[in-house]
Amino acid sequence: MLNQNVLALGKKRSTIREIFEFGNQRAKIVGRENIFDFSIGNPNVPAPDSVQEAIRDIINTKHPSSIHGYTSAQGSEDCRIAVAESLNVRFGTDYSAKNLYLTVGAAASLSVCLKALTASPQDEFIVFAPFFPEYQVFIEHGAGAKFVVIPAQVQDFQINFDEFEKKLNPHTKGVIINSPNNPSGVVYSNETINRLAALLSTKSEEYGHPIYLISDEPYREIIYDGIKVPFIAPSYKNTLVCYSYSKSLSLPGERIGYVLVPNTVDNFEDVYAAVCGAGRVLGYVCAPSLFQHVITRCVADIADISIYEKNRNILFEALTSMGYHCVKPEGAFYLFPKTLEENDYAFCERAKKYDLLLVPGTGFGAPGHMRISYCVQTETVQRALPLFEKLAKEYGF
Amino acid sequence: MLNQNVLALGKKRSTIREIFEFGNQRAKIVGRENIFDFSIGNPNVPAPDSVQEAIRDIINTKHPSSIHGYTSAQGSEDCRIAVAESLNVRFGTDYSAKNLYLTVGAAASLSVCLKALTASPQDEFIVFAPFFPEYQVFIEHGAGAKFVVIPAQVQDFQINFDEFEKKLNPHTKGVIINSPNNPSGVVYSNETINRLAALLSTKSEEYGHPIYLISDEPYREIIYDGIKVPFIAPSYKNTLVCYSYSKSLSLPGERIGYVLVPNTVDNFEDVYAAVCGAGRVLGYVCAPSLFQHVITRCVADIADISIYEKNRNILFEALTSMGYHCVKPEGAFYLFPKTLEENDYAFCERAKKYDLLLVPGTGFGAPGHMRISYCVQTETVQRALPLFEKLAKEYGF
Repeated sequence: MLNQNVLALGKKRSTIREIFEFGNQRAKIVGRENIFDFSIGNPNVPAPDSVQEAIRDIINTKHPSSIHGYTSAQGSEDCRIAVAESLNVRFGTDYSAKNLYLTVGAAASLSVCLKALTASPQDEFIVFAPFFPEYQVFIEHGAGAKFVVIPAQVQDFQINFDEFEKKLNPHTKGVIINSPNNPSGVVYSNETINRLAALLSTKSEEYGHPIYLISDEPYREIIYDGIKVPFIAPSYKNTLVCYSYSKSLSLPGERIGYVLVPNTVDNFEDVYAAVCGAGRVLGYVCAPSLFQHVITRCVADIADISIYEKNRNILFEALTSMGYHCVKPEGAFYLFPKTLEENDYAFCERAKKYDLLLVPGTGFGAPGHMRISYCVQTETVQRALPLFEKLAKEYGF
Repeated sequence: MLNQNVLALGKKRSTIREIFEFGNQRAKIVGRENIFDFSIGNPNVPAPDSVQEAIRDIINTKHPSSIHGYTSAQGSEDCRIAVAESLNVRFGTDYSAKNLYLTVGAAASLSVCLKALTASPQDEFIVFAPFFPEYQVFIEHGAGAKFVVIPAQVQDFQINFDEFEKKLNPHTKGVIINSPNNPSGVVYSNETINRLAALLSTKSEEYGHPIYLISDEPYREIIYDGIKVPFIAPSYKNTLVCYSYSKSLSLPGERIGYVLVPNTVDNFEDVYAAVCGAGRVLGYVCAPSLFQHVITRCVADIADISIYEKNRNILFEALTSMGYHCVKPEGAFYLFPKTLEENDYAFCERAKKYDLLLVPGTGFGAPGHMRISYCVQTETVQRALPLFEKLAKEYGF
């Protein structure tokens, strides 16, 4: 008599959650410091000091009603202006408050966009493996649309365009990309973005309706080696950007982010209105108000991500020298190497013997891989290396 | 090509929003102080000092990662324990952390419950006029179920049981009540609650499945004359409580509340799991983490609501002496008098002549009434009285 889909989703402990619980049990036996938990994507770098200072200052100088009151559903104008101007300075764009709808984090941003765009249960949204597993939940159960996966291009985790073209059809309503990527850490190249944009433009014209590009960008600022991540929206006119401050400001629990609807989107005003309507339908009243004030002040700040880059360098070099094969990540805080046997579940199970907690790639749509979240202490990474080596030796490396 | 339902909801300016905009335009001409805006239900009493103190202390003493990190999806155990214990002390109940699921406010609480319970588009949810208009949005467009209204019992705004019984049928999945009520301010009597519980028990047995009672209680603490609001959950085993701290702590913008699933609910574990699954499907990752810490500390506090009681007393006495007919509200911060002509839109339009901004009752399912939100300065109430009198005189009172 309950909604069986949501019941199943509520009951099913996710693989990551299973691993987390295993870690808790083992920690009781061998001590927390001897558990090498690379399973959770929870930023371990603290929020920048400016965030705590902003909170103190807001509490000390503003009236409680103005701090904690309702804002308009799309977010306070001050915050939306601050976000728009920050994007304009960085990317040479020309956004204003009216292009922004503040949300309760990236999951809300995605849910709202998918709900706004889904006009029929026949509508299809395409994702590229490896992908964030909740996309399937939001597409199928939140929006009620069809979930279509393009297999991974494992040599570089860019887009497999041959497979992609086969799946495009008049029911394709949108495509989700996530660069820098969870779980691969890969950043889409300019070539990938341009080819994607050209193909979507051609197909939109062919089908007589826009194919929306939903660009999920929570890791946009978590990048290494001084690379520039292409800002995707200007490359393709029907792009909706989903953003969250969870990673860039290390505020994952505060649930604050936005949807950006550029003026270039066909029927911009309708799409923006549909985003607002979807927020209303899903029960999002406004983004948390104190953190709208915080973002207004800290929009240009970023947590100290140097620890992530250090961890990536140590892990990537060590693992590749041990015989693991891995595409070098340029962003986010994940490595996604091949497992040393085809069955990624069996491999990750074997790793548990060493209290190495890794996540099988199958859940991300890329079997034969494992996700290593390196948002942990560098010391943990260093002490884990001999264990990764022992594990490799079991496979004859 | 967009979702036409959500587009329409995003485009349609609500009546309250229209009135608000009218007020802004008039304020430019006659001055903000000469606009008597009784349209918005935004608490004007500040959050209690303990909230600002708690925020300062949390920021000064806890590590940023523990303040701003993800909590589990159902909320931190500390916060859930604090809420459960607070309920147990006040109401003699026996709840624990496992009965609570923290949410991003009352709209989220309702959305999650409705999504969890809706197993088929045939499922019906019953509401009693006058009702909060967003119920229709959450039921029809969020959960995809049928919205059924029981007409108001205008002499006291308790439940019209004759009409209610006619609408109960095997498709009835749930019933939403909201006491103290928005927009009437009325508190359901013990007699009403007991009769409702008995009827729902009988009908659940007759139909062979539970009819869930969704008790939407954001105004539970906003009560006057020292009355006791009956705590509803113990009266009927299949009750789900939706709560928000928006009103009791004057934190409407912060989006923090909960769903309470008592152990008495049939298949408690499944219902709780479905609530968790629905939160996941709708893109709610966790309730805002800083405010989980705040609630843990301030769970027993309440904003100073004496101003609301004062405003109610002044308005109720003055309006009834002028000839307006009004059920005396015992809670919330609304009066819901009859309009002095049948057409409530025409009446509220005429009130605009005096810059009195009132909301027609039709949107709440009770034509021929007007909602007066008295969460404003007492001085505003006092200065508005001669205008209400002039308006009454136009109708020969």
